[in-house]
Amino acid sequence: MSTATSPINAESAIRERIDSWVAAALAKDLDTLMTHYAPDVVAFDAIGALQFKGLDAYREHWAKCFELCPGTMKFTLHEVQIQVGDDIAFSHALSHCGGTNDQGEEQACWMRGTTAYRRRAGEWLIVHEHFSAPFDMQSGKVLFDLEP
Amino acid sequence: MSTATSPINAESAIRERIDSWVAAALAKDLDTLMTHYAPDVVAFDAIGALQFKGLDAYREHWAKCFELCPGTMKFTLHEVQIQVGDDIAFSHALSHCGGTNDQGEEQACWMRGTTAYRRRAGEWLIVHEHFSAPFDMQSGKVLFDLEP
Repeated sequence: MSTATSPINAESAIRERIDSWVAAALAKDLDTLMTHYAPDVVAFDAIGALQFKGLDAYREHWAKCFELCPGTMKFTLHEVQIQVGDDIAFSHALSHCGGTNDQGEEQACWMRGTTAYRRRAGEWLIVHEHFSAPFDMQSGKVLFDLEP
Repeated sequence: MSTATSPINAESAIRERIDSWVAAALAKDLDTLMTHYAPDVVAFDAIGALQFKGLDAYREHWAKCFELCPGTMKFTLHEVQIQVGDDIAFSHALSHCGGTNDQGEEQACWMRGTTAYRRRAGEWLIVHEHFSAPFDMQSGKVLFDLEP
């Protein structure tokens, strides 16, 4: 097995991709953020629509998300688990997300994220991602107060 | 490449696992359903909690879900996409889920599911799954009326 394809190297590569993806999201750097995605990404985001297909649709959605969070964003991942194969990998994590609302108050909640990657021409790209918060069956409301 | 590990065979194997998983869920056959999961499964379900860790916790949750749907369940997958590697695979799909409420009325909505598998001792097992419905940022309510 060459070092280029060893599971340990692949896991390090995915970990780096996660770190740079989080950094780009926190910086609201849309161009850098979008370099992490494959052209044919299919994304299930937490808000607004069932799915976003392709880079253009998902970029537009991310731009709207940044507009919804005008202040400083908080976004930290916890309990990150990564599983890698030869050219396929996935990760999942709990995320603690927050920001400042229009009254200047800090708000935060816990959510969940799952990300799937493929290695194409040596580069790991996100081909699928899924973000959500769980809800209460009776009220149909999101459970923003849950803690891990 | 042996036929046992070819991507086509692996994709067929995953497709069969999905079909038998759906059949077990529709039949509310908890024992058969749980044979699809790895002992160390980490599940992000749509309702009730941020995560369920391990087979026992997830079995208990599935049992509660079946109790919440006393009538006939509806559960069909659409736009299923499967990606396979040597010993790792994932799938995602939209799911149309429904049942009969306590007034005898049929209710249904669209949700999203992502599932990750590992092949252990020749058997594909679910090591992670993520179900959700998107919500509206302003109201904090789930968007049950969305259609693909």
